Amino acid sequence: MSEEKAVSMNGPVCPLPLRHDEKIVLGHGSGGKMSHDLINGLFVPPLANPILAVGDDAGIVPIANATRLAVSTDSHVVWPLFFPGGDIGKLAICGTVNDLAMMGATPRYLTAGFILEEGLEMALLAQVVDAMRVAAAEAGVKIVAGDTKVVQRGKADGLYINTAGVGVVPEGVTLSGANAQPGDIIILSGPIGDHGIAVLGARGELGFDADVVSDVAPLNHLVATMLAASRHIHVLRDPTRGGVASTLNEIARQSAVAIVLDEKAIPVRPSVQAACEMLGFDPLYIANEGKLLAVVHHQEADRVLGAMRQTRYGEEAVIIGEVKEAPKTRVLLKTTIGSLRVVDMLAGEMLPRIC
Amino acid sequence: MSEEKAVSMNGPVCPLPLRHDEKIVLGHGSGGKMSHDLINGLFVPPLANPILAVGDDAGIVPIANATRLAVSTDSHVVWPLFFPGGDIGKLAICGTVNDLAMMGATPRYLTAGFILEEGLEMALLAQVVDAMRVAAAEAGVKIVAGDTKVVQRGKADGLYINTAGVGVVPEGVTLSGANAQPGDIIILSGPIGDHGIAVLGARGELGFDADVVSDVAPLNHLVATMLAASRHIHVLRDPTRGGVASTLNEIARQSAVAIVLDEKAIPVRPSVQAACEMLGFDPLYIANEGKLLAVVHHQEADRVLGAMRQTRYGEEAVIIGEVKEAPKTRVLLKTTIGSLRVVDMLAGEMLPRIC
Repeated sequence: MSEEKAVSMNGPVCPLPLRHDEKIVLGHGSGGKMSHDLINGLFVPPLANPILAVGDDAGIVPIANATRLAVSTDSHVVWPLFFPGGDIGKLAICGTVNDLAMMGATPRYLTAGFILEEGLEMALLAQVVDAMRVAAAEAGVKIVAGDTKVVQRGKADGLYINTAGVGVVPEGVTLSGANAQPGDIIILSGPIGDHGIAVLGARGELGFDADVVSDVAPLNHLVATMLAASRHIHVLRDPTRGGVASTLNEIARQSAVAIVLDEKAIPVRPSVQAACEMLGFDPLYIANEGKLLAVVHHQEADRVLGAMRQTRYGEEAVIIGEVKEAPKTRVLLKTTIGSLRVVDMLAGEMLPRIC
Repeated sequence: MSEEKAVSMNGPVCPLPLRHDEKIVLGHGSGGKMSHDLINGLFVPPLANPILAVGDDAGIVPIANATRLAVSTDSHVVWPLFFPGGDIGKLAICGTVNDLAMMGATPRYLTAGFILEEGLEMALLAQVVDAMRVAAAEAGVKIVAGDTKVVQRGKADGLYINTAGVGVVPEGVTLSGANAQPGDIIILSGPIGDHGIAVLGARGELGFDADVVSDVAPLNHLVATMLAASRHIHVLRDPTRGGVASTLNEIARQSAVAIVLDEKAIPVRPSVQAACEMLGFDPLYIANEGKLLAVVHHQEADRVLGAMRQTRYGEEAVIIGEVKEAPKTRVLLKTTIGSLRVVDMLAGEMLPRIC
């Protein structure tokens, strides 16, 4: 991406002492003057908050009245760095926000660790950091600590970003993949496979324009709405790498239950379905970055579904299956032709570097 | 490093379902079955704790009675992965533990994000994870969440590790680089430059055997001892990348004070001094990973120094300078020949990939 394009897409994020036509050099990872200029010129202004601005070795954050925290981390190595609907910066924020939200926690504070490749355009980095700013603002989280390392040319694809996060778990909330019970209903928040196919399209690997946009989004406000609607949500999990199939297998194993899905109930956009058929992929294994699966007590399913549909990221929510006693640890699919087949975890690697 | 050697150095860390002669493939980052086998076979057993073992999207940790948290992150890209005195795993734990400790926090929970290169030997990875286990045990922290990504051959040097951490800040403790006051005394916990020169030696870049061992160590118990000895410690900071010179410049800027050092008081081991002279390096700019600088009220300096010397990582602690009113934001060095020279931040890059 040219420097001109990068800047014109977002505008300069702040009055930069660093010039946008500069590139990252090893000195930016030295811990000396160049590191400080990069941090204070490029990272801190868009992410500005009083905690980060202090510039100490760790951010000090208030946490009064919390008794339990959720703590999570995700490294992001997605390639390409930009794709329809998002980029590595937005993905890095949403990935960790969503991991915290899936435990019912209110995400509060994030850290960001950057591994930059020598030669990376400063304008591109500024654009990624601005996407992080926007996503963090939507999620309502603060980035309170950061770190920057620089590796030699060829030793990273532009940049890798790790985010870690801390959230506060409200009293009485105890979600876990181990809590699914026979009789529970499985709710999916919307159509699957958008993220994986959007990234594949951005790589030019589809051979056609799929017109698919990544679903990458922060789901914490959706989760808050769901938890306010019902005290009988047992499991929440976002089906990222490995897709819905792998995530439901995890839950079936953790809870020692069976999960039976209704294939015709599982929403897949026609463009995603078409791309999957061309490539021989099953949408059940494609990564999502803005969807969640909820396992809910059967008497509360309609209430939870109704609440979800009032929200931006849950308006296409549907019931896709139910939890059974047996066969324990198995996920089964009632196909559109009426047969029942086992859906296993993703076995090998379908789409490397998808997040 | 051969698989045989790696195993014989540490012994197998656990009964692995994964064979030690296997290598990392892209499928280990898929989020499917291979990811689960890697996590449950290699990562979880040595780091085992009930929080990590649950296998949810985030670790849930108790945090009753805390009002302030310290939150920090560090990515580690050190090359080579093993060096005298440590390795990337030990470094990753100590780096984040020390950042939290420098705020006076008690480090509690860590996350670990791995970016693995396709082809990495499983035995080497197991050895790194075991080093993390040992360092975490010494520091008294738990690893409560993790993430693994795999990138193609050539896109990382074996592995990069990010750690993030959460610590509890005790009531009444308010350390910051902004708290240095004229009249304060600067204490250094021991000889400088060991880590940087040890890594350089491991790269074969010295051209001779320097016989230097990295100082990488968790400093949180040293800090606890210091804080118990005095309520008048104003600043703690570990002089990592950029060395003592860059770290003291940060403090001088944050506090808007001058810092005057006594060159002859600054301890440098003869082997480190010799290596620096050969290479044209100034030890003041060489990275340390197990040292700290303390800025202490002058009436408490002896008490703090005495307490430090009772500890394993503080027994060589010395007073190296003092804080003055002016010239603000400057660090000055009284040289051994009696002149006074300005010591600036590290300007460019001296030793890439040192941590």
